[in-house]
Amino acid sequence: MNRKRGVILLSGGMDSATLLYLAKRSGYDATCLIFDYGQRHRKEITAAQRIARRAGCNAHLVKINLPWKGSTLLDKKVKLPKGDIHSRSIPSTYVPARNIIFLSFALSCAEAINARAIFIGAHTEDYSGYPDCRKEFFSAFKEVVKKGTKAGSKDKGIAIEVPLINSSKKEIVWLANSLKVPLELTWSCYQGARLPCGKCDSCLYRAKGFLEAGLKDPLHDR
Amino acid sequence: MNRKRGVILLSGGMDSATLLYLAKRSGYDATCLIFDYGQRHRKEITAAQRIARRAGCNAHLVKINLPWKGSTLLDKKVKLPKGDIHSRSIPSTYVPARNIIFLSFALSCAEAINARAIFIGAHTEDYSGYPDCRKEFFSAFKEVVKKGTKAGSKDKGIAIEVPLINSSKKEIVWLANSLKVPLELTWSCYQGARLPCGKCDSCLYRAKGFLEAGLKDPLHDR
Repeated sequence: MNRKRGVILLSGGMDSATLLYLAKRSGYDATCLIFDYGQRHRKEITAAQRIARRAGCNAHLVKINLPWKGSTLLDKKVKLPKGDIHSRSIPSTYVPARNIIFLSFALSCAEAINARAIFIGAHTEDYSGYPDCRKEFFSAFKEVVKKGTKAGSKDKGIAIEVPLINSSKKEIVWLANSLKVPLELTWSCYQGARLPCGKCDSCLYRAKGFLEAGLKDPLHDR
Repeated sequence: MNRKRGVILLSGGMDSATLLYLAKRSGYDATCLIFDYGQRHRKEITAAQRIARRAGCNAHLVKINLPWKGSTLLDKKVKLPKGDIHSRSIPSTYVPARNIIFLSFALSCAEAINARAIFIGAHTEDYSGYPDCRKEFFSAFKEVVKKGTKAGSKDKGIAIEVPLINSSKKEIVWLANSLKVPLELTWSCYQGARLPCGKCDSCLYRAKGFLEAGLKDPLHDR
């Protein structure tokens, strides 16, 4: 059987883990890309690798080097900002062009392995401040796929799937639950300590999601 | 003096070397990005580093890993195709999404260092078959810059400059000559042997350019 192939951007957090299980349920033979981009929360890389293994998928670890940094997520000398999920401005954890870089690698991989789609777990609730998580950005990137690649310019092309874009964190928790995503393997905290800090943006969003969904975060049972 | 900054994609070939000197003449303080993407012609990396040094510019060597390959330029087990610059199809040396990856790193760098422009040396004559060297692709990428980055969405934004897009190789040779580009330091051949093979697409285009420009390639004087 020749199943359709999909490339999944897997970060190790709960959104992209849910995305992976969603792509699998939609019949995709999934190839995961996991990025080591110098992020201070190295734990998410191990988390992503475990999730891919659990899901029985191929995974490529892609190491990239951003020597110019430009983000508190990359620079250990700078203190992480205190979480503030009500702020409307772009947080200092924003990594310049991160999703653009990730998608361009996914595109290269998709073209090389004849994949039909690329899946990215961005959504607007968490990352209202991140320009590369907005719908307008993904629309623009679809044009790049069409105009700038060999495979993308063909009839079927390569789809950019952002199925969680309109979901809230609460809905993602429910969806993950129904897809039996191993949430206990996921990692969200920007600090890479043994336990989640509970204070950074990423922890705050996760806690809010579980709270609103009325479910318990299995990470806290460990 | 606070000069305007530009990020230059420097491959080590004559087009991007000319581009660098053009950007400098336009008053840009240039930061060069040189990519080690597993290309078989490793010599172009050393060439790019020498050119940046000669031009007195900062340079970042960015190592990237494309484990899925998908190009004869990345896979040493496969034979390079014989040069055929009259063919209209996409050659097997096409690296999936290469310019998209390069531009996304340049964008990340430009955002981090507050650069106003990114320069890329693509032009249509050599690479008529490469989708990521076409005007339509660059127009699409400009939208990505606007929609997907913090700096790009601002008034001045980050320009994508493709000043050689309409130039022929002959014109690039002339321009390089007038800008005193150290063409003797550049490297074009896809094979990375001691001397250019004279047979691959890249060698054929270079030779054609010098012949039509009526100038001698200083590489052959060494």
